[in-house]
Amino acid sequence: MSEISTSIRKDISLYCSSCGATFIPDMRLLACNMCQEPLLVKYQEISTSPHMEIPVDSCDVLVSLGEGNTPVVKMDQLRKRLSCGEVFGKLEFMNPTGSFKDRGTAMMISVAKGFNIASLVEDSSGNAGSSVAAYCTKADITAHIFVPSSAPKPKLDQISVYGAITHKIEGTREMVTDAASNFVEEKGYVYGAHKLSPYFLEGTKTFAYEIARHNSGEMPDHLIMPVGNGSLYIGAWLGFKELIFKGVISKIPKMHVVQAEAVKPLVNQFEGNDNKDPVGTTVAGGISVSSPPRSKLIGEILVETGGHAAAVDDEDILEWQKILAQENGIYCEPTSSSAFAGLDYFIRNGVITKKESVLVAVTGFGLKDNLYI
Amino acid sequence: MSEISTSIRKDISLYCSSCGATFIPDMRLLACNMCQEPLLVKYQEISTSPHMEIPVDSCDVLVSLGEGNTPVVKMDQLRKRLSCGEVFGKLEFMNPTGSFKDRGTAMMISVAKGFNIASLVEDSSGNAGSSVAAYCTKADITAHIFVPSSAPKPKLDQISVYGAITHKIEGTREMVTDAASNFVEEKGYVYGAHKLSPYFLEGTKTFAYEIARHNSGEMPDHLIMPVGNGSLYIGAWLGFKELIFKGVISKIPKMHVVQAEAVKPLVNQFEGNDNKDPVGTTVAGGISVSSPPRSKLIGEILVETGGHAAAVDDEDILEWQKILAQENGIYCEPTSSSAFAGLDYFIRNGVITKKESVLVAVTGFGLKDNLYI
Repeated sequence: MSEISTSIRKDISLYCSSCGATFIPDMRLLACNMCQEPLLVKYQEISTSPHMEIPVDSCDVLVSLGEGNTPVVKMDQLRKRLSCGEVFGKLEFMNPTGSFKDRGTAMMISVAKGFNIASLVEDSSGNAGSSVAAYCTKADITAHIFVPSSAPKPKLDQISVYGAITHKIEGTREMVTDAASNFVEEKGYVYGAHKLSPYFLEGTKTFAYEIARHNSGEMPDHLIMPVGNGSLYIGAWLGFKELIFKGVISKIPKMHVVQAEAVKPLVNQFEGNDNKDPVGTTVAGGISVSSPPRSKLIGEILVETGGHAAAVDDEDILEWQKILAQENGIYCEPTSSSAFAGLDYFIRNGVITKKESVLVAVTGFGLKDNLYI
Repeated sequence: MSEISTSIRKDISLYCSSCGATFIPDMRLLACNMCQEPLLVKYQEISTSPHMEIPVDSCDVLVSLGEGNTPVVKMDQLRKRLSCGEVFGKLEFMNPTGSFKDRGTAMMISVAKGFNIASLVEDSSGNAGSSVAAYCTKADITAHIFVPSSAPKPKLDQISVYGAITHKIEGTREMVTDAASNFVEEKGYVYGAHKLSPYFLEGTKTFAYEIARHNSGEMPDHLIMPVGNGSLYIGAWLGFKELIFKGVISKIPKMHVVQAEAVKPLVNQFEGNDNKDPVGTTVAGGISVSSPPRSKLIGEILVETGGHAAAVDDEDILEWQKILAQENGIYCEPTSSSAFAGLDYFIRNGVITKKESVLVAVTGFGLKDNLYI
């Protein structure tokens, strides 16, 4: 049941990173029908030009609000505090809706436009919701955004501001996803879930391309991100792989995962810890994801790049939010500061040595979730 | 009483645009001692290279948080709505603290650092305050920020987040300035007022350089900004003048001024209307300035570039804030949407014809002042 595609690139297919099965691209197909693994985009022909491969015909059809091209700042105060090597922050909150999500959303909504989608359903802890709301407005698509009613007020307000239909759900993050799924089934709308969409990851690839361009192909030794569903983590890895293939870069940084102590399925998986304790709550709402749908692939990337996964507690997350604002002039949300608590942990535990360089993704603006400072 | 300068460019002086008197650069000297006109920076030697002239020795000493290089987005929905020529929005809210102010602050604080300033006093309706707070943190300068206690909560919070000492003042905007001045006198600190600082304007020049670079030297026919003190307006004009001198561009866009109906000293001046009515209140807090200290120069720029000044009322400002979010996916503060209400006015009144191109500065993030949506 595929809508007519007007601007989708002809040589793409979707594939399952688990069993390798391939599928015809569609906006409704999100997981392999054999192993339930979410899908990825495959390009039949990857050009050797240094330009990024995109799933639409040309850049002209991209639905853009000016996302990406975020600055990389050198964090000398941090280097001094941690007595470590060079630390760079890539300020992803300087995106049109205030978070890295805009990279993925721009591509996902461009593809949705290509498939002539009229209505889209998304569920989100807040940032993806406001991002999808903004791009749907730009693309003239009706957005239904399902959010936890406990999401920070600035995020809830922002979703409504863009004119999306907001569905506030009481209960856990999983109950929000369930409500969205039921609504999709009931209404027959497209479920444009950023955490499952293969096109979203094609957008977050830009993060890797920018790092390569910024450093003229030279990579930092380490890359640290807060990881919930992993849409930036996986997209960046896909970008690095493409850049290797194109001969633009020769190595991929060690890609580290940071999670909150209360919700750490990826850390448990990394440590081979079959922990079935109920998850708790955390101030880092953006990574409060108890069952990341692409956890298998994230585990593989950790192994392939030599990355580590660590959990940090809320006290440290909030302490680092303060340090970033009051020593470095960077005002990010708790989800983002968790990555710096992780950096601290990695240095103290010898995962990152004192001569190595690190780049940290500063994923969301403090203005969106400043309830704790 | 000048502190020792370590990285200030040797060939600069300060000059009065009114009487032409020149002065030795200093962080404390803000106005001509003859005619009280705020000063501008003069370079003895302007190179013919396309690079921007800066008042410090090199880019290496700049205190940067990744400001500038904001995207220019094509606003096709707006073009359709207004049946006009091409409209571009330059998204200035995609700056590190969420407003264009970061361009000016980065330069002002870099110069302050060059003069070895330890403490700085600023007064602001909110955006400049949080910007100065962030850059002072980065530069290890103690910031005292005087703000109206009625400023939007996200702005007040943001100033504190960066660790600045916030002085909330009850009363009018002018009373805030008076309180800051008294404090400066009492303590002997430097008054780093963005509205008076010649260095601040050297930073906002980057806005003009980016427009020139974005369009490969071709200028839009019109440029529209909300103008309070005019620190972006004047800085952009200084940038354009420099670019003309360097042969990078050959014309300057018509530079239009938009103010709020309740506080419109520049519109009154433009219309030759000697209105002495008491000013009212407006939702556009960033342009609620009843006596802009550089009004004379702004008047001259209006004449030189063929710009117009118009006032728009609060109802239209709020309506345009909604239109921008819900039709264009751009979430800006009311101060910023006033420029689009102005665009509408200029088109309806034939100031901008249907074939001409327009660029509008979208100055501040809606997340900072979203109380009205």
